[in-house]
Amino acid sequence: MPAPLHVTFAAGPEGPWRIDRIDALCGATLEPAERLRVVEAASPKPVLAASWALCGVTSNPRYTQRAELDGLAARQQGLRRPEASRAALIPIRKTESWWAMAQDERRAIFEEQSRHIAIGMDYLPAVARRLHHSRELAEPFDFLTWFEFAPEHETAFDTMLQRLRQTPEWRYIDREVDIRLSRA
Amino acid sequence: MPAPLHVTFAAGPEGPWRIDRIDALCGATLEPAERLRVVEAASPKPVLAASWALCGVTSNPRYTQRAELDGLAARQQGLRRPEASRAALIPIRKTESWWAMAQDERRAIFEEQSRHIAIGMDYLPAVARRLHHSRELAEPFDFLTWFEFAPEHETAFDTMLQRLRQTPEWRYIDREVDIRLSRA
Repeated sequence: MPAPLHVTFAAGPEGPWRIDRIDALCGATLEPAERLRVVEAASPKPVLAASWALCGVTSNPRYTQRAELDGLAARQQGLRRPEASRAALIPIRKTESWWAMAQDERRAIFEEQSRHIAIGMDYLPAVARRLHHSRELAEPFDFLTWFEFAPEHETAFDTMLQRLRQTPEWRYIDREVDIRLSRA
Repeated sequence: MPAPLHVTFAAGPEGPWRIDRIDALCGATLEPAERLRVVEAASPKPVLAASWALCGVTSNPRYTQRAELDGLAARQQGLRRPEASRAALIPIRKTESWWAMAQDERRAIFEEQSRHIAIGMDYLPAVARRLHHSRELAEPFDFLTWFEFAPEHETAFDTMLQRLRQTPEWRYIDREVDIRLSRA
């Protein structure tokens, strides 16, 4: 378990990732921008952005159980694979009713009812992902998930999102933006 | 579930709480100081402190189940009761092996083996508490727990700490400082 990593996604005229589109699925969108930089630091670090900047921090798993962690570890691959020239940044915010629930209630909706971990597993190792927590950083979203995949896996990635968005868990999401990116 | 509250515990020559003693139970201590201020804000806010400042943020429960939350809610009282003129600030840091565990493994140690919630329940409503998370804020501790109680309950509070410190959960704590405070 690496130490928490503070990550800023900074949109503006520069950065290695080209922003191909920004779609608001629910709630307010983010303003258009050309490029995205991903800045990593060991502690919270202000990053200037011409357009917008979203911050999150990696952390320990909050719902994943041992058998699930082992299953994920056996199949998942890391970020920055040379062939993974497509990415998605999906910021979401959950409702007050989600955060008012107890741990067992949230886990039941997250996995026993929605199969969030199981659905993600179906797309490993093609889709690499990293979750960033934002709720405790006074940010506009609760989570920022960053995905990387090769162009030929974008259709499968879209299918994964469709499946997740039909689950009971998604009834507790009141803001979601889908940002697609590519690099040369 | 209130929105996350950012709280800084700032030690120096001023503040409403007098620091009566600082005891390191495990790992490095904190330097002596006279007084403590507790500064609350909706977002991370730099606070100057002559001696030391520790920051944390309130969040949703990470282990507590519905029946336990209901049991706590039925008995607990809030901070700032007039009779609660004694306080304790107990910063702790957990080991890498704790953070490497899955959610079910940490929950099993926390409650099924250590009865952390059940032990705390035995001291309600006398001991009021608020937990602050620090690990994702690049702080020297992972958690800051703030307790308030009347002087006649300090012995019971000490017994509670003794019981908790004998549990399997405490094997995963590698830094703990016990700061006792009082106010007029």
